[in-house]
Order: sequence, then structure tokens, then C-alpha cells
Amino acid sequence: MSERGWIERYFAPLARAPGAARLSDDTAELSRQAGPVVITTDAMIEGVHFLASDPVESLARKLVRVNVSDILSSGALPLEALLVLGWPSDRTEANLAAFAGALGAELDAWGISLIGGDTVSAPGGLFLSLTLTGACIADAPVRRGGAAPGDELWITSEIGGARRGFLARAAGQQSPHISQLLEPVIPGPGAAHLLAAHASAAMDVSDGLLGDLVSLARASGCGAQLALDDVAFADQAATLDEALDLATWGDDYQLLFAAPAGSRERLETDALSCGVRISRIGRLTAGSGLGVTWLGARVNLPETLGFEHGRIGASPTRP
Amino acid sequence: MSERGWIERYFAPLARAPGAARLSDDTAELSRQAGPVVITTDAMIEGVHFLASDPVESLARKLVRVNVSDILSSGALPLEALLVLGWPSDRTEANLAAFAGALGAELDAWGISLIGGDTVSAPGGLFLSLTLTGACIADAPVRRGGAAPGDELWITSEIGGARRGFLARAAGQQSPHISQLLEPVIPGPGAAHLLAAHASAAMDVSDGLLGDLVSLARASGCGAQLALDDVAFADQAATLDEALDLATWGDDYQLLFAAPAGSRERLETDALSCGVRISRIGRLTAGSGLGVTWLGARVNLPETLGFEHGRIGASPTRP
Repeated sequence: MSERGWIERYFAPLARAPGAARLSDDTAELSRQAGPVVITTDAMIEGVHFLASDPVESLARKLVRVNVSDILSSGALPLEALLVLGWPSDRTEANLAAFAGALGAELDAWGISLIGGDTVSAPGGLFLSLTLTGACIADAPVRRGGAAPGDELWITSEIGGARRGFLARAAGQQSPHISQLLEPVIPGPGAAHLLAAHASAAMDVSDGLLGDLVSLARASGCGAQLALDDVAFADQAATLDEALDLATWGDDYQLLFAAPAGSRERLETDALSCGVRISRIGRLTAGSGLGVTWLGARVNLPETLGFEHGRIGASPTRP
Repeated sequence: MSERGWIERYFAPLARAPGAARLSDDTAELSRQAGPVVITTDAMIEGVHFLASDPVESLARKLVRVNVSDILSSGALPLEALLVLGWPSDRTEANLAAFAGALGAELDAWGISLIGGDTVSAPGGLFLSLTLTGACIADAPVRRGGAAPGDELWITSEIGGARRGFLARAAGQQSPHISQLLEPVIPGPGAAHLLAAHASAAMDVSDGLLGDLVSLARASGCGAQLALDDVAFADQAATLDEALDLATWGDDYQLLFAAPAGSRERLETDALSCGVRISRIGRLTAGSGLGVTWLGARVNLPETLGFEHGRIGASPTRP
């Protein structure tokens, strides 16, 4: 089937927004928004971000969610998507149909319109990339660099589910977390409302909580203090070593954010009404650097605080 | 070097727009525009759209231009870009620096801001994808489907340069067209102004003039009549066979558009003042189908009117 054939059969039905012109045009028209619009793009590639044997339905959902978590972290709600699909010729049309079906359902679940994209053949393996816009709830996006010393640090839901899934899969064990490795469970749209109302800075946690926390603190010109035992870990962490392992692995796609200490009570009330589970895990400090405690005692940190994607020298294949 | 390291060294300096936050954030903020904004994304992949040995500077310029031609065809001027770069670990850092340098210069030449993106390692070969926004000059984008029977058909500049370059390269000959194969020469911003003022429908010619013309006519609910001898071909076409070959190969990235017959005089005057070379090559008709003449005589058309990218069954490696 030709590229035009695939698009018409599997993707044009997903493109119902008027600006999408059913994907028949060279460009799509973005819907007009009263407030600021943010945009992000994230790619996933076979042999780097996923295995060739991973189910394409999971890949479709993960592709949407890793982009949505970026939009939510900016205090915005997802709007419109463009898909780049690099499809290997040895994958079947049924496999493509399964991918498109899962993608459409996941986009629908978030209220996202597919408005454009490009399909190409990809002899080197499946390549997926999504560009996603989002409408800011407040009159500016939440940024990484907006926090100040004294602001408290919060995290949505729990950390380490993907790591637990990775370990279980590697050991050949059954675990409910294996599905979290394949497709993250991310906060709902309520989290964007919460962040837009309260967060002075935010980001999604994709490369490990500790490393990402350093990024947020640095962007805000601050240091940070983290009480590792206040972090909600998947299946809880019994020891410091286990906590450090879960907090440096990544693939969590939870939202890390800072908020002024004075707004704690309202924040907690709003989180309840938005249906978002949050934990207070530390605070930003004057100066720089990251200090971590475990049950009140200072912790010596490992050299590597998170996962670094895409090294030139060594191509990390993960999971 | 880590992904963060590459981004900081080679791409952050290209991101000067305030909304880009120097690429340090999860999302970028789109600049606000008074009128409609269009968006497009086009990918290029090693072994499909280019050879591993092609100079990365040419790939960078082509990546920008194939997206810009889509924006221009909508009667819009390019604004902001997001880059997805899948980089194989066996390419050198100097090669990356050369790519980033050429990309930056090409974006600058078009006044485009790089505002975001994603870099990943790509074990299967270099993978490039650009998402580009554009600001419409008029109060709506020019679409493929807006033309009516009787509208005249026009094309910018000339067709077939890439095909000439391909043939020359295959034969081991020198030719000024080889550079057109590697990096298309596309119309300037004046073409967007011309289309916004006059075009009832438009698209860029990427997959062969004849096939793309059928797409435009079909989207407009029309048939089309084309005088093939009125098309300006690279180095001219001496015979009908040569003209058909050049008109069905693609990679031209010129703009095909329709305009009401009554506006011809003003269109030609404006084209001169916009510095855009255009040729009138036919007209849209009631009904459907494509009729082609050569020196006044009706032409039997080949079965395949253009290049079809990305077949599932056979992976076309081209050029």
C-alpha cells in the first residue's frame, strides 16, 4: 500500500479537527486560543527506547503520554498533534492498524486532535515522533526556572514503577509494574489545573527524580533539599539503596513542581478536588547543589543522578 | 557527550526566541500571531530520502526547505521550528557540528526560530524531522481544495532540476543540477505573498508535477488540462518523453497553484514585483481527470504520474 493509502485508511479517520483538512493538505491550521500555546516534541526509537517485540499498542499510548506529561508540566492542556511515523517494511499492515487504533483511542482520551504528520519507510527500525501543542490554563506557561528559595517541592503520584517493571521483566517475574514500563500511567488533566494555579516551577520526571530535581533547581537558580523517605515509591522502598535506585532510573513521567510554602494548605485542598495525589518531598534553597536525607540523616549521593539519553559514544539500549 | 551536552553546545545557541527558553524546558511557547497559524512536519531518513554519504550540510538545508515549501504553499511565512534529530553513534561530533551550523544558517536565512526538539540516538541510521509553523498573510491559509473550474494553473520557477541531477550523478557526470538533488532551490517569501493575494488553491510539488496536479484538482473537485509544453523545465525538455520523465519524478519543491482567470494580469504584475518567476501551464475543468497536451496534441499518460513515498511492500531507496 502507498503512503497515501496508509494515511487515508488508518490516520485520516483520526483527524476530525476542521484545521486538519483530513490530512490531505501540506499544512494544518492550528486552532485559535485565547491564551498562550505551548508545543513539545518527543521521539521514540526501536532499540533505544523500546524493543522491536514490544506491543505497538503500548508504544502508541506511551508516545502520546510522554508528550502529554510535558504539556501538563507547563500548566497546559493538550490540544493538537502531528505524528511522524517511520515504519519498517517488514512490519505488517495489521500491526499498523493496531498502532493507529491505539493511537486514536489514546488521543481521544485526552481530547487531542491529530492534525498532520508524515509517514516514511524506516529500514533501520520503527521510529515514532509526536509534536503536541497545549493551551495554557493561566496567562503564562509554568516553567522550570520560575521557583525561588524557600519554595516547597512536590511530586505527583509515585516514583519507580517503571524501574520495578524493568527489574521484574529482567528476572522473568510477573509484576503489575511491567505494564508501567511499557506505557507510563501519568497524571490526568487535573494536574495541569493544579500546576497552573500553584506551581512556581515544574517539569516532568523522565530521566530520574534526583537528576531532574537538580535540573529544576538549577533552572530556578536555587539549590534543593530532598527528604527521600517522603517520596512515594512504587511498592515503597525498604532501604536507602532501593530508594536511590528508584529515584535515579527514570521513565516515571510524573510531575515535579515547586510552590510557595504559604500556599501549602490551598494546594493540598485543590489537589484533592482535582483528583491528583501529591507528596511534599523537600524545598528549594539559596545557593546551589542537592542535599538528600533519608530518615533525617544526610545521604551520600551516587555519581550519576539520572539516565542520560542519547550519548554519542555509547548507545544505551533501554529498557 | 550526553544529549544535554549536544543540545547545549550545538542547538541552544540557535534558539534565541524568548519562547524557546534556550531549549532548557519541556515545552516552548509559540509566539502570538494576529492571524491564522499553520503547521507542518516532514521527515527525512537515511537510505530512503538520502544516502549516508550525502553531506550533512545539504541535508540540513533540504530539511528546512522541504518544510518551508509547505508553509509557502499555504500563503504563509515560516515562523518557528522544532527539530527531531536521530543521530547514529558512529557519526562524529564534527559531523554534528557541521549539521547544526548549516541548519542554523538556513533557519536564519528564513527568519525561523528554533524553539524546541528532541535528540535521540538512532542505531538504524540518521533520522531528521522538522516541525514548522507559519503565519498566514491573509485571513485564511491557501488550501489544495479551494479552486473552481476555469481557474488557471500556475507553477513557480522550473521543474525537473532534481531529476536532471539524479541522472547526471547516476551517469557519473558533472552537472549544476546535482546540487538541486541534494538541496532544492525553492521560491522565496515573495511567493507566499503572491499566493496569499491570488491563489484559490495551492500545494508544493514534491512527488511529481502530474501526480501532484491530480491531487490539487481532486481536492478542488475539478479535472485539469495541462499544456506540458508550457511548463518551464530545467534545461528545457526536447521531447515529449523527456517532459513526461521530468514531470513525474518529483523533488521539485516548487509551488503549483490555481488562480481565477480574470486575475491573470494583476498576478503577473505582482509576480514580477515579488521576484517570483511563474508560468501558466493549464486550467481546471468541470468534471474529473487529467488531460495533457504537448504542442497542441493530446498525450497518452504513463500509468504512474508521480513518486509514491513509503510503500509498505517495497522500500524505495531514492535518490
